[in-house]
Amino acid sequence: MRLNENLNRLSKSYLFTEIAKRVEEYRISNPDSVLINLGVGDYTLPLCDTVIKEMHKAVDDQSKKETFRGYGPEEGYLFLRNSVKNYYKTKGIDLEADEIFISDGANSDIGNVLELFSSDNPVLVPDPVYPAYVDANIIQGRKISYLDATIENEFLPDPPGEKIPSQIIYICSPNNPTGATYDQKQLQNFVDYALETDSVIMFDAAYEAFVSEEYLPSSIFQIPGAKKCAIEICSFSKIAGFTGVRCGYTVIPKKMTYEGFNINMLYKRRLAARFNGVSYISQVGAGAVFTKSGMTQVSENLDYFRKNAKVLSEALKKKGIFFTGAKNSPYVWFRCPYEMKSWEFFDFFLKKFGIVGTPGVGFGKNGENFFRLSSFGGTEETQLAAQRILQL
Amino acid sequence: MRLNENLNRLSKSYLFTEIAKRVEEYRISNPDSVLINLGVGDYTLPLCDTVIKEMHKAVDDQSKKETFRGYGPEEGYLFLRNSVKNYYKTKGIDLEADEIFISDGANSDIGNVLELFSSDNPVLVPDPVYPAYVDANIIQGRKISYLDATIENEFLPDPPGEKIPSQIIYICSPNNPTGATYDQKQLQNFVDYALETDSVIMFDAAYEAFVSEEYLPSSIFQIPGAKKCAIEICSFSKIAGFTGVRCGYTVIPKKMTYEGFNINMLYKRRLAARFNGVSYISQVGAGAVFTKSGMTQVSENLDYFRKNAKVLSEALKKKGIFFTGAKNSPYVWFRCPYEMKSWEFFDFFLKKFGIVGTPGVGFGKNGENFFRLSSFGGTEETQLAAQRILQL
Repeated sequence: MRLNENLNRLSKSYLFTEIAKRVEEYRISNPDSVLINLGVGDYTLPLCDTVIKEMHKAVDDQSKKETFRGYGPEEGYLFLRNSVKNYYKTKGIDLEADEIFISDGANSDIGNVLELFSSDNPVLVPDPVYPAYVDANIIQGRKISYLDATIENEFLPDPPGEKIPSQIIYICSPNNPTGATYDQKQLQNFVDYALETDSVIMFDAAYEAFVSEEYLPSSIFQIPGAKKCAIEICSFSKIAGFTGVRCGYTVIPKKMTYEGFNINMLYKRRLAARFNGVSYISQVGAGAVFTKSGMTQVSENLDYFRKNAKVLSEALKKKGIFFTGAKNSPYVWFRCPYEMKSWEFFDFFLKKFGIVGTPGVGFGKNGENFFRLSSFGGTEETQLAAQRILQL
Repeated sequence: MRLNENLNRLSKSYLFTEIAKRVEEYRISNPDSVLINLGVGDYTLPLCDTVIKEMHKAVDDQSKKETFRGYGPEEGYLFLRNSVKNYYKTKGIDLEADEIFISDGANSDIGNVLELFSSDNPVLVPDPVYPAYVDANIIQGRKISYLDATIENEFLPDPPGEKIPSQIIYICSPNNPTGATYDQKQLQNFVDYALETDSVIMFDAAYEAFVSEEYLPSSIFQIPGAKKCAIEICSFSKIAGFTGVRCGYTVIPKKMTYEGFNINMLYKRRLAARFNGVSYISQVGAGAVFTKSGMTQVSENLDYFRKNAKVLSEALKKKGIFFTGAKNSPYVWFRCPYEMKSWEFFDFFLKKFGIVGTPGVGFGKNGENFFRLSSFGGTEETQLAAQRILQL
């Protein structure tokens, strides 16, 4: 039996294991110390009332013969696809319901959508970035090259100078881990580049709900031409805390054609063959997010995290430390003080202050000397962390 | 941009679309007729009380900060993996919890698990069979050959005479669509064949809960040697009606090695890179299935469907029509009377009696002249259908 040799090329997820190990060692030698964990990208507030109420109703639906739902449509229930469609309308984007595919989360669809394309196409990924893009492409055997995101370009690299044909180009904006967010013009450059080179843009919009500066795009489809060359992958995880509920969506415009084939139709065919849809209860919960009361409640939560991000960024500003993010993102990404390496600063920050963050180098070589703090912690913890930053 | 050309080789899911079309035409020309639908493989009873109660609790967990669950382990919560482990113990099978991977359903994992193996390995699939095996392999570009399941072998073909190396061999027992169920000796032949040829068995146990004759195996791991060469894919859909809740599990024994690699470890690595786990609420519901009250309640539902299957099979017996299934399966698979072709009988049965079934040829060429009825309908409907069969 021959194995998929690509699986062996996956790097073991060293980052979070190593963090856990060092935190454990610290706990053992400092049993009385209170740890402040700003290392996670996981939501920490409970689901909002409207979502909870609707999910209870959905569970009740499953308890009665008349309302029981078995296999649903693999592309998702129309009620939810229509809700997503209306959400895009608030961004000035017209979509049809059947351009929207409900998924069990962004992570899954990052790999699923890739099955549309041949393994021969080269991949372009920013460095540093969320590791799932690289992993999904390694498993399918694609060659990956990197776009350097550095302090010089404020972690927002432009498309490459060279016109390389037929690339799969990843953009994550607002970015994980740097929080940096592309503007209209910068994204237009990518769309133009993709159209010129017969490439496809995979736009990860998982953090779109954190975009708070009105002039910044929160969807690639706000850019003219994008419907011909971009797929947008999004999720209810960061807007509404669905990390444990599992629901997301992927937009594949009907205008996209490659080699004469309609990509939307091809994906529909793949879904019919490979998927039986997302949990009815999760879909009902997701639908509730986009109701009036749902949006009011999730906005309050988002504001809570935004305030945390602001507290952290103001401390960095006062200390004159270079950072990106915070304004349109739950993440604050800053240069390690004293020219420390990422892991060196991790140890220093943990041992001196009891604060856990994420070493930037864990997201790619250009993350070296940088550090990520998350605003998903509690207000008090975040304020304590800010005080510690001021003591640096 | 080069596409994955394999997607174009997927046959459009003609079967159920064509059924829907013909049923619609019938409805229009017979507006007053009451349709009896025994064409579906979808569960129709509501979820049992214990599952509903626990899912409400899980929703409540998500409403409070102290009990909120964000990202869970990608391989599934330990509480559920332990429940599955204990369920296998009742079948006399010892598993470790980390040999069990919680999935969002059998259909998804049929394709996911395939990523372990190179696209060069040939695939062996029975004909007729559930179409998902073929589709998932076509997308990944594998060459497929077929094992003929026919009336001569009572739809339970043996391994091929020729020893072909490194095959991915599918077995579905109890079978969809034929309901035929392998015995110990027949499965031992497959295990021996797989061990001899360095092949892997993909054992689809989705209908295991319907096995009611005690001497028949309901898991491939009841066969000596299987832990070295078999992966078992299962689901809560047919045991407990989770077709809309979405939860399943896949067993990959730690004893399986190919090319010197531990397959269980490799799959763990794939999951970490590609998946964020199944909905917490679905997992809690699934855990409730395996409690004492859960098992009592789902058994009552299974008995309800079994009774339906018996009603259908007894009518066929009385008419002297050859059939398989019914005893250990929700499906009854019979030879079309009057030597009719599958679609011919579909039209006849629909127009004469208002009953919808599934034409056997939709599951493969050897399904021609056969027809599938499902026991997932209501008791009255099923009795009416049985009366009609007696009128044939």
